[in-house]
Amino acid sequence: MSQVQRMSRLMVKTLRDDPADAETISHKLLVRAGYVRRNAAGVWTWLPLGKKVLDNVSAVVREEMDAIGAQEVLLPALLPREPYEASGRWEEYGELLFRLKDRKGADYLLGPTHEEIFTQTVKDQCVSYKDLPVMLYQIQTKYRDEARPRSGVLRGREFQMKDSYSFDITDEGLAESYALHRAAYQRIFTRLGLDHRIVSAVSGAMGGSASEEFLAPAAAGEDTFVDCPACGYAANTEAVTFPADRAEPADASSVGPMEELDTPDTPTIESLARQLDVPASATLKNLLVKVDGEIVAVGVPGDREVDLGKLGEHLAPAVVELVTAEDFAGRPDLVRGYVGPQGLAKVRYIADPRVAPGTAWVTGANKPDTHARDVVCGRDFEVDDYLDVVVVEEGDPCPSCGAGLRLGRAIEIGHIFQLGRKYADTFQLDVLGPQGKPVRVTMGSYGIGVSRAVAALAEQTADAKGLCWPAEVAPADVHVVAAGKAAQIELALDAAERLRAAGLRVLVDDRAGVSPGVKFTDAELIGVPRILIVGRRAAEGVVELKDRRSGESEELPLTDAVAKLTA
Amino acid sequence: MSQVQRMSRLMVKTLRDDPADAETISHKLLVRAGYVRRNAAGVWTWLPLGKKVLDNVSAVVREEMDAIGAQEVLLPALLPREPYEASGRWEEYGELLFRLKDRKGADYLLGPTHEEIFTQTVKDQCVSYKDLPVMLYQIQTKYRDEARPRSGVLRGREFQMKDSYSFDITDEGLAESYALHRAAYQRIFTRLGLDHRIVSAVSGAMGGSASEEFLAPAAAGEDTFVDCPACGYAANTEAVTFPADRAEPADASSVGPMEELDTPDTPTIESLARQLDVPASATLKNLLVKVDGEIVAVGVPGDREVDLGKLGEHLAPAVVELVTAEDFAGRPDLVRGYVGPQGLAKVRYIADPRVAPGTAWVTGANKPDTHARDVVCGRDFEVDDYLDVVVVEEGDPCPSCGAGLRLGRAIEIGHIFQLGRKYADTFQLDVLGPQGKPVRVTMGSYGIGVSRAVAALAEQTADAKGLCWPAEVAPADVHVVAAGKAAQIELALDAAERLRAAGLRVLVDDRAGVSPGVKFTDAELIGVPRILIVGRRAAEGVVELKDRRSGESEELPLTDAVAKLTA
Repeated sequence: MSQVQRMSRLMVKTLRDDPADAETISHKLLVRAGYVRRNAAGVWTWLPLGKKVLDNVSAVVREEMDAIGAQEVLLPALLPREPYEASGRWEEYGELLFRLKDRKGADYLLGPTHEEIFTQTVKDQCVSYKDLPVMLYQIQTKYRDEARPRSGVLRGREFQMKDSYSFDITDEGLAESYALHRAAYQRIFTRLGLDHRIVSAVSGAMGGSASEEFLAPAAAGEDTFVDCPACGYAANTEAVTFPADRAEPADASSVGPMEELDTPDTPTIESLARQLDVPASATLKNLLVKVDGEIVAVGVPGDREVDLGKLGEHLAPAVVELVTAEDFAGRPDLVRGYVGPQGLAKVRYIADPRVAPGTAWVTGANKPDTHARDVVCGRDFEVDDYLDVVVVEEGDPCPSCGAGLRLGRAIEIGHIFQLGRKYADTFQLDVLGPQGKPVRVTMGSYGIGVSRAVAALAEQTADAKGLCWPAEVAPADVHVVAAGKAAQIELALDAAERLRAAGLRVLVDDRAGVSPGVKFTDAELIGVPRILIVGRRAAEGVVELKDRRSGESEELPLTDAVAKLTA
Repeated sequence: MSQVQRMSRLMVKTLRDDPADAETISHKLLVRAGYVRRNAAGVWTWLPLGKKVLDNVSAVVREEMDAIGAQEVLLPALLPREPYEASGRWEEYGELLFRLKDRKGADYLLGPTHEEIFTQTVKDQCVSYKDLPVMLYQIQTKYRDEARPRSGVLRGREFQMKDSYSFDITDEGLAESYALHRAAYQRIFTRLGLDHRIVSAVSGAMGGSASEEFLAPAAAGEDTFVDCPACGYAANTEAVTFPADRAEPADASSVGPMEELDTPDTPTIESLARQLDVPASATLKNLLVKVDGEIVAVGVPGDREVDLGKLGEHLAPAVVELVTAEDFAGRPDLVRGYVGPQGLAKVRYIADPRVAPGTAWVTGANKPDTHARDVVCGRDFEVDDYLDVVVVEEGDPCPSCGAGLRLGRAIEIGHIFQLGRKYADTFQLDVLGPQGKPVRVTMGSYGIGVSRAVAALAEQTADAKGLCWPAEVAPADVHVVAAGKAAQIELALDAAERLRAAGLRVLVDDRAGVSPGVKFTDAELIGVPRILIVGRRAAEGVVELKDRRSGESEELPLTDAVAKLTA
């Protein structure tokens, strides 16, 4: 049973003002309420109150992982280069990876995620199909050298993560391990009190096939997602894929022949649309990129943006880069700012399905200061490949039912992947199968940002007065505030001890010489769900019980308050 | 309540043979019993069974730290260079420190211990003497790039440590915080079941005044310590200090004049003693060292060794180095292998108290192939400083009572320091004092090697059959072994469930197709304190209950066995 935490002894210094560099709610409030302290960009200390919340989140994660039969282990963070060299991620991670050398000059890294090492572990420990399936997890410190670490513990360079890995011999087994994790994650986030959505996701650098993200909607989130109010479809915007065959042909028989226009000083869609007095959606924007070094043009309506992430996903494993001024130098056929598909015989042309056969466009004429109009797809130019590559916008049709999509910002709090055999192939992870022959293992990988979940909870639950924790993660169940006089402090400590004896986790503000007003403000900032005030009627045994979220309070005898809190 | 752990599902692969590179008991057995797995030199994974033991040790540490009012926090391992630059340890740690750069080229280190950062934390969080005393702790991953990482988890390069720090405004306060930690450490090691000694220690690179070590006697230990069977004195051998005034004068009136001897080919004490047929203890060995670059001679009896650690402690902060061949080159007065104090007018001479005034010696004559005898201290040469600098040996007199000391090897499992104001001075850690003026804070620092404690426990408790854990740290309370038939497995699972429901942590070997012999051997190797065998008399409801340590066993009805185990 935990001890009563006395504010007179607890190391918690609250601040009235937001830290100068803080942008997000969680960053501001976790610092102001004395939960965390910054050591360096993206590197944080968890102070006593913060450590309690972090532990409470970890405990929920641990219970639910144990409940699905996952086994807890602890891997090192300092990892040798070789396995990451083998998987290709020593290079692929680029600057995101913290690399270092030991005293003998050997290369090491600080683990950003542990697929390689878990694969090696299971190769060591599991010999037969009888040893599988196995699910392993750890709650451990991860390192990623983010380009712009910010938002406090929401996106750190050193952070706490629960990562787990499943090992099966069949695709059905993997699907089951994945489903177990998916259900466990739903229970975890529900117990934590996190509003969350499960959305389709792209697998990115992780490799593998199916993957879903758990998103916590919040203005401070760095992810955008869509959901459909009509059918419930939800996806990370990068993963929204409209079928490319949505390109519905138009009738171009009444469109006149292509015509060139003198359009000086119109290198942008905006300037072009203004000069010609046409909507941006009637213009055709052509973005040049390099795909494995070869120049490719991507055509989308002028009012849309190309989503380079989606384009990269479509074309993977090819590498997509933007073209540079040097790339134009050797190509007189490519006139910067005035590219049109009708003049690109030697360039592969990828287009959004909206650039359908028979549609007519205003676009570049492949000459300086010149555009062309009535440029008809299928007549004046051909599309080599239709791909959905535009950035999704609010109101775009749902790929599942066609209704208008809603767009939102969210924090990624979990991600589950069906990796398949990518890492098993790299490390030749086989076990002896039921028929006595080696069988290649198939894997899943599953992550929860434990420290990020604390920040996400703060973002979703805080109000104007401060933090406002859900019961399961709060640093205490009750915050007892002694108004100030010695007798009130005595009574408050007595009440705290009774609540503790009844099994509650209790924080008591027993500070002498601190005004009641400061104590109330601190209690609201710290955000324990229930506040018990031992104040002016303490002598008659009457206290005030306040709900932190609703602000509702009632005066009642201490005995009744204790009974109510421990009910 | 924990779940029943089923061997059929648990990732634990036992080995019959010791790993090739393993030298110590704990290394061999923790690998063979499937507790740990090596990732790189000094870098280890804690597999499911090992993670449980590590958690059990951590839980005991946490409870006892909470009980003395220490507050748990979590600091990062990735730390900026500046605070360690300020304390001087960025340089002092030398190659022991893992250093790295981030993507912007800024210097970081992986924390080997956190005095600097805790000092900064308290400077931030504590303003007034009313905020003190405060004791903070963390159980966290530490990094030290050991020159020879070995012995498995006994001396890793990445390891788990509990480090705590106390902050007081008075020396009495520091003494109290230190005493609280000392008592907590005694309770921790007693609860863990570790045989341990508290010995005086030297503070080393940590700085500060008083310090004591907690040592776990074990053959695999890297520390040597002495204890006195007569008076209970105990110290790390490096910290044994005999009073220098123990140099009791001898009467040299009957000793003849100094005489030179032709002694070809006797550059060592051994060869000299053999040729002259005198005991090594009658010869005087003179070791040349450089102290801050100046050559100094150190004289000790020929049968003793100079303890460079003790010499360094005596002369700190001066830096002590051995002399090189180049150092001799410019000094014709120093004849290598034939140095004698009677010819060292220009060299400072430090001697062991045994080289007392009036004692006569055989020593070098400062000429090649020549020694001198009847060289009398005080007559033929002078001692500038008496210092106790010899390596302690078994039977040396106890500095406290004079009785013969015993010598032993041990593992350092804890270390407590009264740091004083060293770090507070570096970071100007002051708080507002009771008189309204700033008061400089005084600090203590306290460490327990959590992962090392696991290895120390294995070293102390293992027997010929395998690991043999004390109850509080064992990965389970009972290991239920089902002999092999389906009915026996059923009954074993049933027994396991009953034991679990009664609050015990249960491991059950329910593997099908594994022989009873292998299961018994595995159970003994894994080392859970009590083994319940569901075997040949299972059908009649009779099982065998075995004590892992004593090997004693009895047959009894299952109901009685359950009652006995849960008593």
